[in-house]
Amino acid sequence: MRMSELSRTSGVAVATIKYYLREGLLHEGERTSATQARYDQSHLARLGLVRALLGVGGLSIAAARNVLAELDHPAESVHDLLGSVTHQLLPDTREDLDLTAAKDLITKLGWWFDPDHGEQLRPLAAALAGMRSAGFDLSERELIDYGRAMHEVAVDEVARVPTESPAAAVRYVTLGIVLVEPLLLALRRLAQVDASANRFDKGQGAVSSA
Amino acid sequence: MRMSELSRTSGVAVATIKYYLREGLLHEGERTSATQARYDQSHLARLGLVRALLGVGGLSIAAARNVLAELDHPAESVHDLLGSVTHQLLPDTREDLDLTAAKDLITKLGWWFDPDHGEQLRPLAAALAGMRSAGFDLSERELIDYGRAMHEVAVDEVARVPTESPAAAVRYVTLGIVLVEPLLLALRRLAQVDASANRFDKGQGAVSSA
Repeated sequence: MRMSELSRTSGVAVATIKYYLREGLLHEGERTSATQARYDQSHLARLGLVRALLGVGGLSIAAARNVLAELDHPAESVHDLLGSVTHQLLPDTREDLDLTAAKDLITKLGWWFDPDHGEQLRPLAAALAGMRSAGFDLSERELIDYGRAMHEVAVDEVARVPTESPAAAVRYVTLGIVLVEPLLLALRRLAQVDASANRFDKGQGAVSSA
Repeated sequence: MRMSELSRTSGVAVATIKYYLREGLLHEGERTSATQARYDQSHLARLGLVRALLGVGGLSIAAARNVLAELDHPAESVHDLLGSVTHQLLPDTREDLDLTAAKDLITKLGWWFDPDHGEQLRPLAAALAGMRSAGFDLSERELIDYGRAMHEVAVDEVARVPTESPAAAVRYVTLGIVLVEPLLLALRRLAQVDASANRFDKGQGAVSSA
């Protein structure tokens, strides 16, 4: 199909498709003349993926490019792959971040982590530092409970990673990180609404004025 | 203390403090002359909070202003408060979002939601639409498992909401949403690394080439 049809079918504007081509997020079509190219189902599928990564996944163009490169050229070992994807998706955090509290928590949870990749602890360290800076301190018990809950989720997720090919595995892991994060957060908020309705029985939960 | 000391103690640059003052994120100090004002512990505490909301919380200036307004003037009912905070923190999502799949999932989970506030379903609808657009379809079983896991987390969280005053409750709920989200995501990734090490035994998890 031509660019115009690709745009119509995908719902992505022609200017946006051209931008994705320039940024290397979408592979070139097959040239049919100096000014035209032909696109196929693979372009349509990739556009859906790019939109998901940039939209609900909340990635920058550069991060999306890294994730797509990972999808196109996956690592051989499923374990290395998890590490490399996690690394790609690490947010930029302050250089002077203290990893001690994060390391302590992981040790208390009894989780394995790669001592050569201490940077994997950075998002956790940043989250803990943010809470401390806001004066919002959770107890060790609460932190461990959060950890256990996420570990149950993670065990199910890792058990579902398909192993028939590196490409299938990396696709599952990458999209599982990027696209399931918004899902989890959305579910948590709605679960809070339900739990709040149960605890405070709507409206009757008025608390005494400060 | 003077602005210069507030800056030194908080580690926030004077220019940034002035910016927060202009944007209404930080309350004015007590004027001592035409060009000087005095700041106290309340400014120091607020600066820590503002930095956490804008930093690890990932909020925009406008969203942070709304959250702070909620903290300063909390709703009377704990249940209403959860609803209003959730509403403040809703990301901008497409107008034409179809809420059907989100509503179906919540119904299957048996969760209460306010039919007058269908917009609370939007983040979930956006997450589901993103997965669909990327061709990453989870089974109903998997979605329900994610929901149950987050519900367990939410029940514990709501049980911990302090009810001695509206101010304490709103602070807990707001910061609990904004600051615990990065914590949960960071824990999930590290839990996946641990679960992956257990399942694939590091390096031995090489999968057959595609």
